[in-house]
Amino acid sequence: MNIAIVGVGLIGGSIAITLKEKKFAKKIVGVDKSEANLKKALQLGLIDEAVTLDEALAQCRVILLSIPVDAILDLLPSLLDKVTDQVIIDMGSTKERILSTIANHPKRGRVVAAHPMAGTEYSGPEAAVPNLFAGKVMVYIDAMNSDEDAFDTVEAITEQLEMRATFMNAHEHDVHTAYVSHISHITSFALALTVLEKEKAQGRIFELAGSGFESTVRLAKSSPDMWTPIFMQNRENVLEVLEEHIKQLQHVHDVLENEDYDAFYRLIKKSNKIRRILK
Amino acid sequence: MNIAIVGVGLIGGSIAITLKEKKFAKKIVGVDKSEANLKKALQLGLIDEAVTLDEALAQCRVILLSIPVDAILDLLPSLLDKVTDQVIIDMGSTKERILSTIANHPKRGRVVAAHPMAGTEYSGPEAAVPNLFAGKVMVYIDAMNSDEDAFDTVEAITEQLEMRATFMNAHEHDVHTAYVSHISHITSFALALTVLEKEKAQGRIFELAGSGFESTVRLAKSSPDMWTPIFMQNRENVLEVLEEHIKQLQHVHDVLENEDYDAFYRLIKKSNKIRRILK
Repeated sequence: MNIAIVGVGLIGGSIAITLKEKKFAKKIVGVDKSEANLKKALQLGLIDEAVTLDEALAQCRVILLSIPVDAILDLLPSLLDKVTDQVIIDMGSTKERILSTIANHPKRGRVVAAHPMAGTEYSGPEAAVPNLFAGKVMVYIDAMNSDEDAFDTVEAITEQLEMRATFMNAHEHDVHTAYVSHISHITSFALALTVLEKEKAQGRIFELAGSGFESTVRLAKSSPDMWTPIFMQNRENVLEVLEEHIKQLQHVHDVLENEDYDAFYRLIKKSNKIRRILK
Repeated sequence: MNIAIVGVGLIGGSIAITLKEKKFAKKIVGVDKSEANLKKALQLGLIDEAVTLDEALAQCRVILLSIPVDAILDLLPSLLDKVTDQVIIDMGSTKERILSTIANHPKRGRVVAAHPMAGTEYSGPEAAVPNLFAGKVMVYIDAMNSDEDAFDTVEAITEQLEMRATFMNAHEHDVHTAYVSHISHITSFALALTVLEKEKAQGRIFELAGSGFESTVRLAKSSPDMWTPIFMQNRENVLEVLEEHIKQLQHVHDVLENEDYDAFYRLIKKSNKIRRILK
């Protein structure tokens, strides 16, 4: 099977590595608006050939979209107009807005909306790594709206990536990702900004940064090109969780300000319940 | 040299592993108010013998305090009363309050205040690991107040741990750790509480949790026994940074609410400067 990766960055590139390694794809072609990324992807052996989107449609059974969600929103309707029996995989991090724009498209069934819950704070073809997905979750969104053969094709890819599958509707997906992915990025951005600001006044502040700090701010290295459109498309859900998070922080603040250390102890103890979820 | 580890948990136990491995310590004895921890530390081979504090003082050149900072505050003055020429290492995560209580003690010079900027979210003797400290920073606080031979002894231990050294006064240390360690814990606690709360209403929320979420909340697994006293002793600095952090989050919120995506992009771009500090 020939597969086109539209957007040869962290996600698209990492998928290409595995599908090639396992010989699932006969040929992998790359489409990218950045000539530099295409060149790099060829050099790294992520793709066999750099082509245009029309050439990809002519050659490939699968067109995998791993580009920023604003670009998916732009591209998807016109791409669907050209599709015959190819399978389009939308790998974006937000779904409600994107899927609503193609809801009534006659070719809607050719699209499988899937979100691999894996990534790193790095981007571009150089960020692609083997085994990024193994053991992680692939979320299928509104799977009942995809043609059966299209879904089966994507399921086969998910198996190659050694991912577990779960199913949600678009609204659930966008709410859940606001809570377990998007908010984590916002706290990292804000923490980085807080400490970078302080450094200006205090100088040596980062000498003391250990692994705890690194862990909570590493997402602040994430690409603004990828993340701004995610927040744009998931604005309402993100605002809701951000308001709740600020409320929680304000509560921690007040408890500390009032020197109610029993309550402070109980807050930490309660947050320890996260051990149930994180190994 | 015989060394006593008071508090055979993550930090004390991990130091014991290295000092034993490198044969720096002839004998390592453990002191702990928890019988269970002492038994476990013996079983794991972290210590050679479980003793009382008085026995430790009689046998050892070095008494290393790796207990919660409220326990250090309680113990240190009376311990100093009994010291002749032993070296006491205070490994606590806060310094200003602890060091001020012994500022005028005739034996002040026997204390070396040092803070190894390393750790994990786990605690207890089972959490002790080899190489926890290699390549990390040991901060010496108010080193000019320690006797030269006492300081030299601790420096030799720092070398065994393969740590880099840096020097600060107690106030600087407490401000800096508020920014690069204590606030990271608070954001993790609050994020865990936010999402655990949402889970009650939404159920399947954690199915989607990937490595980004794990990274930003893992510190929420930290022990309340260790951390509540840290926040108690560093309350003012922590409140200051927490207020700044809430302000930053509120700003991110407002920019998103106003749909000012150019400003949002610039905020992420600015937070990306953290790349300068984190590899």
